[in-house]
Amino acid sequence: MTRPSQTVITAAQNASLRLADRQTPFVMNDWYVAAFGEEIQNQLLARTLLGRRLVFYRTTEGRVVALEDRCPHRSMPLSAGMLEHDTIVCGYHGFRFNTEGDCIEVPSQANCPKNVGIKTYRTHERGPVVWIWMGDAEQADLSKLPAQDWMEEADWACSQGYLSLKANYVRLHENLLDLTHLSYLHAKSFGTPDYAKAAFETEISDGQFALLRNVVPTTLPPVWGIPTGLTGQGQAARIVRSEFRSLGLHEVSVTFYDCHLPEGGRPQFRIRTAHMPTPETATTTHYFLVHGRDFAQDDPATTRFMHDQLFVAFQEDVDGLALQEQVLANTPAEDLYEFSVAADAPAVAMRRYVLDRQQKEAKA
Amino acid sequence: MTRPSQTVITAAQNASLRLADRQTPFVMNDWYVAAFGEEIQNQLLARTLLGRRLVFYRTTEGRVVALEDRCPHRSMPLSAGMLEHDTIVCGYHGFRFNTEGDCIEVPSQANCPKNVGIKTYRTHERGPVVWIWMGDAEQADLSKLPAQDWMEEADWACSQGYLSLKANYVRLHENLLDLTHLSYLHAKSFGTPDYAKAAFETEISDGQFALLRNVVPTTLPPVWGIPTGLTGQGQAARIVRSEFRSLGLHEVSVTFYDCHLPEGGRPQFRIRTAHMPTPETATTTHYFLVHGRDFAQDDPATTRFMHDQLFVAFQEDVDGLALQEQVLANTPAEDLYEFSVAADAPAVAMRRYVLDRQQKEAKA
Amino acid sequence: MTRPSQTVITAAQNASLRLADRQTPFVMNDWYVAAFGEEIQNQLLARTLLGRRLVFYRTTEGRVVALEDRCPHRSMPLSAGMLEHDTIVCGYHGFRFNTEGDCIEVPSQANCPKNVGIKTYRTHERGPVVWIWMGDAEQADLSKLPAQDWMEEADWACSQGYLSLKANYVRLHENLLDLTHLSYLHAKSFGTPDYAKAAFETEISDGQFALLRNVVPTTLPPVWGIPTGLTGQGQAARIVRSEFRSLGLHEVSVTFYDCHLPEGGRPQFRIRTAHMPTPETATTTHYFLVHGRDFAQDDPATTRFMHDQLFVAFQEDVDGLALQEQVLANTPAEDLYEFSVAADAPAVAMRRYVLDRQQKEAKA
Repeated sequence: MTRPSQTVITAAQNASLRLADRQTPFVMNDWYVAAFGEEIQNQLLARTLLGRRLVFYRTTEGRVVALEDRCPHRSMPLSAGMLEHDTIVCGYHGFRFNTEGDCIEVPSQANCPKNVGIKTYRTHERGPVVWIWMGDAEQADLSKLPAQDWMEEADWACSQGYLSLKANYVRLHENLLDLTHLSYLHAKSFGTPDYAKAAFETEISDGQFALLRNVVPTTLPPVWGIPTGLTGQGQAARIVRSEFRSLGLHEVSVTFYDCHLPEGGRPQFRIRTAHMPTPETATTTHYFLVHGRDFAQDDPATTRFMHDQLFVAFQEDVDGLALQEQVLANTPAEDLYEFSVAADAPAVAMRRYVLDRQQKEAKA
Repeated sequence: MTRPSQTVITAAQNASLRLADRQTPFVMNDWYVAAFGEEIQNQLLARTLLGRRLVFYRTTEGRVVALEDRCPHRSMPLSAGMLEHDTIVCGYHGFRFNTEGDCIEVPSQANCPKNVGIKTYRTHERGPVVWIWMGDAEQADLSKLPAQDWMEEADWACSQGYLSLKANYVRLHENLLDLTHLSYLHAKSFGTPDYAKAAFETEISDGQFALLRNVVPTTLPPVWGIPTGLTGQGQAARIVRSEFRSLGLHEVSVTFYDCHLPEGGRPQFRIRTAHMPTPETATTTHYFLVHGRDFAQDDPATTRFMHDQLFVAFQEDVDGLALQEQVLANTPAEDLYEFSVAADAPAVAMRRYVLDRQQKEAKA
Repeated sequence: MTRPSQTVITAAQNASLRLADRQTPFVMNDWYVAAFGEEIQNQLLARTLLGRRLVFYRTTEGRVVALEDRCPHRSMPLSAGMLEHDTIVCGYHGFRFNTEGDCIEVPSQANCPKNVGIKTYRTHERGPVVWIWMGDAEQADLSKLPAQDWMEEADWACSQGYLSLKANYVRLHENLLDLTHLSYLHAKSFGTPDYAKAAFETEISDGQFALLRNVVPTTLPPVWGIPTGLTGQGQAARIVRSEFRSLGLHEVSVTFYDCHLPEGGRPQFRIRTAHMPTPETATTTHYFLVHGRDFAQDDPATTRFMHDQLFVAFQEDVDGLALQEQVLANTPAEDLYEFSVAADAPAVAMRRYVLDRQQKEAKA
């Protein structure tokens, strides 16, 4: 058969037009992770988010400040200037800006002109991460921030990390909503052959997309087998929920237990991973990650072991998505078409939702 | 005088509009070299030809397979996947494709969807090279493949090599049809001062363009003087035929002999070079080369000596054409004009033919 | 307040439309520095000026030749060819060009075609620099070249240098017309805190823009304090004139003296810096510099000390302007606006003048 007929290809291309992709403008009105809190100290940090250059710092009182990273006098990046008493002094001509983005001093003249300032952005620090709202400030509602209480709770041991992804963020969300890729992209790390073939359920509603998969019995890869002690062939149950919570957060929750023990007394081992993609540009993404577990909380060796193993696997995603991005960039439009299968249902629904969000925002 | 009048420049620019150049789309309906046969083994090889990403492999039975290098599910390059029993398993979600480009397995579901597949390309392996037809498969006629029997014959000793050219392939064909450049671009390698000034003849017909040059007597450069023993000043005759055989093949045939010996008994030394350019992108070209001789066939030292000397010279072409490409890319359109002289007649006819081919193909 | 209202932003954006910036085409009809004289020897030198590729050489008689760097036969850069007896032989097919840009030999034929040639450019060597006129040759009037006699006079000790600037040349002129940046961009080199706050005067007329600043008393930074001996706290007067002389030349003249000595007998120390930007492309600039002083003329250690100190500071400009250029390139148009203050008056007038010059030239 080889390539399908042009009719079939055109139908596939038309279906894709309804899905968000690398060409979809960013959705501004949502919470995204700007940084880990520990990255923002009492010094200037430059970072591009959603195509805008920002500068961050923490005031002496501990508050996070996020400003446009451009002096409105002569466009020097403010991040190349100096932080003095919680104000930024531009490194070019010394214009000074306060935490509100107001220009409060022009050294070459006695009076500072009014009406000169730059944009400030609302941020919200919670647990290990700093969230930012880049869109309409009036809509910056904390109720839209999906709760991640476990990151702050004492009975969860957490570690965190960052990866630089050379691909559009939508494709990372898509990746996270079709975990059949574990058996292939992660064949050498935490994938197991049975994962892709296991039965799954989906939960699809407006703005919430989840994939549920129970692999029972299964043999755990070392990353989970060793810390839980469930190292036997076919000893474990692996109960997975992978869920798009918002444009800035995808959460994976897994429970492991010994499937040969009776339901009552068997210990449960739970892990959670918050995957937090923030677009940098149309084809690059900041990929923040927090991983937690509710067992062996006081064992730093386990933390280190799991962190190292997991980041090998997450790097496989980053490498794979970068290859995909290159193909998407280099394929002539008429040759580009994609087909979806049943397992893609949550990802397709998510991409349709993202495009809807963007189109509604553009109209508003 | 300096720069000519605008009238003259405009006339030159208009004349160039009838010649193929870096902006001419590729001619798809022809045979091009995809690879040397030895490059394609029972493993995946990625290569971009005529602007399309392909993946190659050799089946366990030895047949060459050429497929579109993009999974039609989520655009992962198939070359990043695995080859299993002559089928490719995509490295992302495990979709499996056979040698015909049909998708034959989707791991997450029991039944494989129909109508999912990728393009296959017809290839033809002959002697040391694998040819490919990228255009309309129905026109892929082996009679259009110019014969190169000498590459396979026992009385020709051959060597082969590859160069990566950072220029459009048309300019390489042009280079090969005006060998007066030997005296200049190759002054330090195999050029001799008398070559450019020697009388020449041309053969121009539809699709066949040749340049004939007899340099008698001449002094051979070491690359040919040493292997033939014709090392004396003015001892040699150098009879050259340089011919555009197709878009994918230019052949240079040279006969050397001692011009002081009588015509009857003097030995003849023949060499042939197949220059096989295959466009990669509009400004990069795969440059495959096979060189043969019909003397000293069993002497590997001669093979190595000639190969090394020749590739120094071919690299000079590659370096020079890359400089030319940069000038063509950076010169404002209004400042760009080129004049041709008598020696350019075959190259100009060839470039006109290539443009005609492309325009006919676009209309069909 | 943060970012100003859209009305204010739009007004700022509209005001900027009347100022030259990175998108303004080059003004061709003016003298620019092509090279230091010592760079041009009896060999080929390639350099791009105002977006055009040129090749330079000095004839055996010592005259500077500037030609288009492109063979009009097949677009090979002539700078990759050979210089033979004051003529260039193209390195591809041996076409030969004289100092007037005329093609005078085509090796493959007995007669050289007429009407084949390339553009020559008028140059003028004076003191250490070679000026070039890239525009309409009929307007190349030496009276338009601003005099810089001091560079050639015995009582001025000079040194020279070159910096490669990754920014548009207009922003370098702007930088030189607002020296309040000395206190900030050069805080670690030759800036002093009082400079930005000192009173200033401006001289603005059509095509001549100057900024005058007397800082009295002041403490000199080492670059000037040490060579003049004015190292005391508040000992010195620093009388600065910074002037846009032409598109290719900005001159800074400074006089230092001991402000505690009586006006009559106190020695005066004068320095001059010729800042000579020549656009290479829209976003890169050749930055030629000549620095002179009228004291300690015979002390090479002083020359070296001042040169090294100054080039640390000039590199700060180059680094800062490259950052500014990146911001200008990456900021979405709707987010880009700049406000000017009183100290910007000469720079704003200069940028308006440059845009006027370009627009008049485009109409002519």
